[in-house]
Amino acid sequence: MNSSREETDNKIAAANAAYEHVKDVAPRTRAGWLTGVAAGLESHADELVELGQEETHLDEGRLRFELRRTIFQLQLFAEEIIRGEHLDATIDHADPDWGMGPRPDIRRYSIPLGVVGVFGASNFPFAFSVMGGDSASALAAGCAVVNKVHEGHLRLALRTGEVVEEALDQAGAPKGLFSTIVGREAAERLVDHPLVKAIGFTGSTAGGRMLHDRASLRPSPIPFYGELGSINPVFVTEAAWRSRSAEILAGFASSFTMGMGQFCTKPGLLFVPHTDMDVAALLRTEIAEKPRRPLLSKKLREGFDAALEGMRSTPGVDVLVDGDDSETPHPTLLVTTAERVRERPGILEQEMFGPAAVVVTYQPGEDLPSLARLLDGQLTATVHGEPDENVAALLDELRERSGRLLWNAWPTGVTVSYAQHHGGPYPATTATTTSVGTAAIGRFMRPVAYDSFPPSRLPEPVRDENPWRIRRRVDGMWEAPAAEETE
Amino acid sequence: MNSSREETDNKIAAANAAYEHVKDVAPRTRAGWLTGVAAGLESHADELVELGQEETHLDEGRLRFELRRTIFQLQLFAEEIIRGEHLDATIDHADPDWGMGPRPDIRRYSIPLGVVGVFGASNFPFAFSVMGGDSASALAAGCAVVNKVHEGHLRLALRTGEVVEEALDQAGAPKGLFSTIVGREAAERLVDHPLVKAIGFTGSTAGGRMLHDRASLRPSPIPFYGELGSINPVFVTEAAWRSRSAEILAGFASSFTMGMGQFCTKPGLLFVPHTDMDVAALLRTEIAEKPRRPLLSKKLREGFDAALEGMRSTPGVDVLVDGDDSETPHPTLLVTTAERVRERPGILEQEMFGPAAVVVTYQPGEDLPSLARLLDGQLTATVHGEPDENVAALLDELRERSGRLLWNAWPTGVTVSYAQHHGGPYPATTATTTSVGTAAIGRFMRPVAYDSFPPSRLPEPVRDENPWRIRRRVDGMWEAPAAEETE
Repeated sequence: MNSSREETDNKIAAANAAYEHVKDVAPRTRAGWLTGVAAGLESHADELVELGQEETHLDEGRLRFELRRTIFQLQLFAEEIIRGEHLDATIDHADPDWGMGPRPDIRRYSIPLGVVGVFGASNFPFAFSVMGGDSASALAAGCAVVNKVHEGHLRLALRTGEVVEEALDQAGAPKGLFSTIVGREAAERLVDHPLVKAIGFTGSTAGGRMLHDRASLRPSPIPFYGELGSINPVFVTEAAWRSRSAEILAGFASSFTMGMGQFCTKPGLLFVPHTDMDVAALLRTEIAEKPRRPLLSKKLREGFDAALEGMRSTPGVDVLVDGDDSETPHPTLLVTTAERVRERPGILEQEMFGPAAVVVTYQPGEDLPSLARLLDGQLTATVHGEPDENVAALLDELRERSGRLLWNAWPTGVTVSYAQHHGGPYPATTATTTSVGTAAIGRFMRPVAYDSFPPSRLPEPVRDENPWRIRRRVDGMWEAPAAEETE
Repeated sequence: MNSSREETDNKIAAANAAYEHVKDVAPRTRAGWLTGVAAGLESHADELVELGQEETHLDEGRLRFELRRTIFQLQLFAEEIIRGEHLDATIDHADPDWGMGPRPDIRRYSIPLGVVGVFGASNFPFAFSVMGGDSASALAAGCAVVNKVHEGHLRLALRTGEVVEEALDQAGAPKGLFSTIVGREAAERLVDHPLVKAIGFTGSTAGGRMLHDRASLRPSPIPFYGELGSINPVFVTEAAWRSRSAEILAGFASSFTMGMGQFCTKPGLLFVPHTDMDVAALLRTEIAEKPRRPLLSKKLREGFDAALEGMRSTPGVDVLVDGDDSETPHPTLLVTTAERVRERPGILEQEMFGPAAVVVTYQPGEDLPSLARLLDGQLTATVHGEPDENVAALLDELRERSGRLLWNAWPTGVTVSYAQHHGGPYPATTATTTSVGTAAIGRFMRPVAYDSFPPSRLPEPVRDENPWRIRRRVDGMWEAPAAEETE
């Protein structure tokens, strides 16, 4: 089943040929390919969701929602590239009076990088997998994609790949623009191959870091956009705790158990004031209502069990709500104190990917900002507070350590939009970019300037007449494109 | 003279404290610091240019122009950040009807990374040195800068640092926001220090690659924006050669000898049709008129001599115009053929930093695109052609391998503007970004999203009322800021 080196090389070569062939097509053409893939996924929804249920233990509702999100993402990216936002087209006309001396005519826009290697995650078999955010943004950018599928849902992955290839073919895209490979050897070859120009990765910190270093040490280093690990701390202020502890605990119980805790944005740390209230009983009741399912895969389950066991056996960490080790494990909540965490900051650094979290209690007047300073880089950080409280210092420390801040909300669920940012300081991600939302497209492009070119030789995005009707910056000022085409 | 580890650590800590203190100031305040530095450099122009003449062998006119460019850059960046372009502010209001399901209120903008380490180059003692493009863009982004000065012009560098620190102080910026360090040990510490969040580097391929790998392998990797080496090939078509060979050779002679060939954009390779014309005589005459000066430093001279000797002794490479090894060396031109280059593509990969270049002659009907495919990554690539020629395939190959394409122009001289791009595939640079022009600022920022925040807790750039009057994208549509302030 694993791809041989020759197969991998052939797919990369075919991807590069496809990229070369279509790297300069008009955005509307490329958008048609994206919406074609969206339609292909939609028309195979029943089959794909069924395969997903068989392989992942996720329920139908969740899988259907995730597929809808995946389809929507392709459609949104199609609209985005028609607007030309990703091209960042900028025109500086020649200016004899420019402040530092005469300026030649210079025009810049962004071109696709080439072949992109994408490593899908197991926990979102659609949204962060074969045709997930990395593949969609690389295709939107104009790149070709070779996708190393996740073995956790191999049949679904390969079938999704077939559906995508078929849809691209029907939409008129060149063969080879998208393909899949299998296995560790193929994965390493993908990172090493001279024709591969960037990597998108979602997975574990250890595996991601290894591939990051490998990509960085190539004879010709390439960008490695890796999403590794995140614990997503939630801080509850004393005032918020006084006014609505039950509501907060209910929200927490829902968020950390969502998808059996197998979300990269699962809140794995809850900082609350020390209390005489029976938090354990409250949480136990909340959790009892949540559906329980097996974890995604045996490998993931083993990793979860080991991480949980490691945390449970850490001195100063106690059990708050005991889970079990059944096939559909009851969630576990551990508890420790701010004092102990200050002695052993490592407690804050261990991700437990699955249905478990740590509650950290703190004493009245605790210095929350300095506690926040003990945290690693995170995808998200959340504060539950009251309207009149001053938590600026805490928010500031959390912003230094995360990519998305939430206020009185929960981090699970990441909408695909223009302003979304899904990324954060290392080890949350290995770059400063986002892997979700329209801004993800730019990761797979690079700018090129045209200096002193005659009008007839300029590419479409930077011609004065703006044939693609995109938004551009001209001599420093942004210009709206001509009225939308009505066709 | 070299900074001790303790000194280096203290400067980095002070830089971080300064960054923390002012990371959220309004763009107008920060712009005032940049224009303050510009004014400080201007008021010390005579002193600095004199020091530069003593240490670099560059003439007064060149140094004055370079200082003017450096000052202009600071002023342009000040304007740019007042417009808020670097913030990339994006607002998605909550939307219950969003295509993939209800969307929360999400707002994103970019914040500074923290302390940036900058390594200045020797060849532009102002424009790519202490307060060159990397320092200016990092300060504009809101970062603090610790600058590892180049030993090639140590007194000038340290004096420039003093002028900058004094100007920042007078403009009201916090102490420590900018400082300088000296020496290799300090340089390595700068790349390793946990508080340093990015590196800007201009220098040699070997040194830059070593530091790139070091930055990538840190416990917490950081972006390394390195500009390493580039040979800047120029292709002359048969038609252009027929119609204006003398003019092209004159332009080439001026461009490759500019600054004694010590420009990162020096055209080091000229591809011309094989000819019976006495090219050597023509070039010798052109070169004879050019001013000659010693190279920038002894170390650089040794490197140049070694590179030139290596190229001269390459089989198949002959001398076209002989130079000399005087203190102010006469430029050397070597010659080879396309045929030999195809046998030994290494000829195309050796940068000779100084007054030397290689002319490559090709036979009628030569396949120029396939010749271009032998090239490494470049900052620039140039074509001299005639209006009716079809050179699309050649331009395409050159675009794949460079960051700036020129048509019937010369690559030396890099204007600072909105559309400028100074960067290219490895080894030209280690990232896809530019180190010149307003787009350089974004390298030192990262996006952060605010999810579900109440209006009163939102930072200025993403408040509905737009207090900083910056350009923003709101619900997918770009909005112009309110009318410019008239104060």
